[in-house]
Amino acid sequence: MASAVITGTGSYIPSIRKENNQFLKSSFLNSDGTPFESTNDIIIEKFKSITGIEERRYAKNEYKSSDLGFFAAQKAIKDSGVDPEELDYIILAHNFGDVKNNAIQSDILPSLATRVKYKLGIKNPNCVAYDILFGCPGWVEGVIQAQAFIKAGIAKKCLVIGTETLSRVVDKRDRDSMIYSDGAGACVVEEKEGAESGIISHATQTFTKDEAYYLFFGNSFDSNEDPNVRYIKMHGRKIYEFALNNVPQAMKSALDKSGIEIDEVKKIFIHQANEKMDEAIIKRFYRLYKKPIPEGIMPMSIHKLGNSSVATVPTLLDLVLKGQIDKQEVQKGDVIMLASVGSGMNINAIVYRY
Amino acid sequence: MASAVITGTGSYIPSIRKENNQFLKSSFLNSDGTPFESTNDIIIEKFKSITGIEERRYAKNEYKSSDLGFFAAQKAIKDSGVDPEELDYIILAHNFGDVKNNAIQSDILPSLATRVKYKLGIKNPNCVAYDILFGCPGWVEGVIQAQAFIKAGIAKKCLVIGTETLSRVVDKRDRDSMIYSDGAGACVVEEKEGAESGIISHATQTFTKDEAYYLFFGNSFDSNEDPNVRYIKMHGRKIYEFALNNVPQAMKSALDKSGIEIDEVKKIFIHQANEKMDEAIIKRFYRLYKKPIPEGIMPMSIHKLGNSSVATVPTLLDLVLKGQIDKQEVQKGDVIMLASVGSGMNINAIVYRY
Repeated sequence: MASAVITGTGSYIPSIRKENNQFLKSSFLNSDGTPFESTNDIIIEKFKSITGIEERRYAKNEYKSSDLGFFAAQKAIKDSGVDPEELDYIILAHNFGDVKNNAIQSDILPSLATRVKYKLGIKNPNCVAYDILFGCPGWVEGVIQAQAFIKAGIAKKCLVIGTETLSRVVDKRDRDSMIYSDGAGACVVEEKEGAESGIISHATQTFTKDEAYYLFFGNSFDSNEDPNVRYIKMHGRKIYEFALNNVPQAMKSALDKSGIEIDEVKKIFIHQANEKMDEAIIKRFYRLYKKPIPEGIMPMSIHKLGNSSVATVPTLLDLVLKGQIDKQEVQKGDVIMLASVGSGMNINAIVYRY
Repeated sequence: MASAVITGTGSYIPSIRKENNQFLKSSFLNSDGTPFESTNDIIIEKFKSITGIEERRYAKNEYKSSDLGFFAAQKAIKDSGVDPEELDYIILAHNFGDVKNNAIQSDILPSLATRVKYKLGIKNPNCVAYDILFGCPGWVEGVIQAQAFIKAGIAKKCLVIGTETLSRVVDKRDRDSMIYSDGAGACVVEEKEGAESGIISHATQTFTKDEAYYLFFGNSFDSNEDPNVRYIKMHGRKIYEFALNNVPQAMKSALDKSGIEIDEVKKIFIHQANEKMDEAIIKRFYRLYKKPIPEGIMPMSIHKLGNSSVATVPTLLDLVLKGQIDKQEVQKGDVIMLASVGSGMNINAIVYRY
């Protein structure tokens, strides 16, 4: 039987490093517009202890989201060795399109996938390029869609990109603005006959009953700002509880479908949203199987890279595969899981054998 | 074998009717900012003779794109008789997200598919909701993706929506602004074992080499306007030539894959972008088979509804199926084609047996 195999990965880490202490002069407000009682050094220390974030990366002014996606795509193509003219699909996940520095409009015409295809210089018109909006889990969902096209017999080679410049859509008066960063990751997924590696199973869910607007586009906490200008906003506590209650179960659903034992799972690459949340998710996941958490099961990049939405999982995967995260590696034959949660509220998980 | 069958359709036609003569007082400019030499009555008469557009529809101020999509989705669900809780996917195509009246920011967080799922009151988290950005052919591509998920065994019932409010992103100084309108259309695609009807074949292409920016987000023709505010813009003549050179061939590619003879095709539902262009496409398509154009082969809605992007094909299909277009109908067993072209530049075509 044919498998959907990740044959190459690539990531782009923007060059502007913004450390926590660069927020010391910020004027953070509560959601009701009142100032915080604590001083910024205390706010930042508490922020760091929960999220794990010490610094994050911002794209240079001259780059837009599609540029970052292009840089990551180039690397993934090179890593896979695929001839880009043979790609059947370019699937690109983002949340806000191309936002120019200091502009408030998103530019999504044409799609970012079209822009990346144009930059890659691909001439073949049968390479179909489209964007998917699926919150932070968009890149993982793009891999699931690539697999579906392969299974359906309409694709053999797909490029899947996640790219985002959250730094362009943050409310500087909102403490949560410290979470967000910019970045891009990509992979090539190919059909391989009789391969032992590949996607084994997946699970995807969209929760909208109470959760649709946990992440939303909202006004600044500063009521003097133009009400027509909106930013990325979230109900952090609700998301935390939602994720803890639902992500472990979705991961279990994917793993149970795969028929693979929990002990065989060697690495879990989880969306880098918040270190404490990710740790709590993994704890609950192993508790569902009444098993202890294996040491080093969860590589992390959030400390230095922040939360770059759709880019976190492919970037983390790429860094580990390239030996760029200390004491983390994936061996041929290893079973790994990819998992994400974000706006939608969407959750997904993939079980994959390398 | 299982087929992907359209079991219900629905459309929403916005209530604000804007006739051509309401543009008589406009101050149209050339792309270089110079005024036209002709008077508006002549400009409008020429516009009508090329595009066929006599009037177009705009959404009420209080509605956004996701509202229109919700209205169309409700009707498609009712028409199909599907239990919405049994939907596996909600696939929603758009180009600009939710744009409030008189605002310039697109709101795409959360995705519009999430918003529609929320409005439909669907509780089942296994109904996966995502947006696709693929230019005007986005709805047709959503149907192709639904079919892929069905073929891949990961879905049985999908809701596919196309919704757009182009009236919110037009440059009033640009004559092309008269082309654009608002609207939404939807269908339910279901897996049916042993059905004689269903999708037979499809073709999709993305042209980026020279064509990526034929439709783009650009500044007003009025150079006094804020350069940070951008609108839908197009290189109309280039698109016209591109479409004539490539759409008939893509349609032929889909039809040849289906194994069905051209004489069996009873109706062609083509994106309502421009009447002269659509007529020229059909002419070239039949010329590829050295056949005369059958009378009434191409139902049209552009005269009264303008170009509502992703909404034109599903709306037109719905109107014909419901007997709302004079002298147009589809009978059980008829082979029809759906075809579209737009930003990307993307082209697609589906061959379908009713």
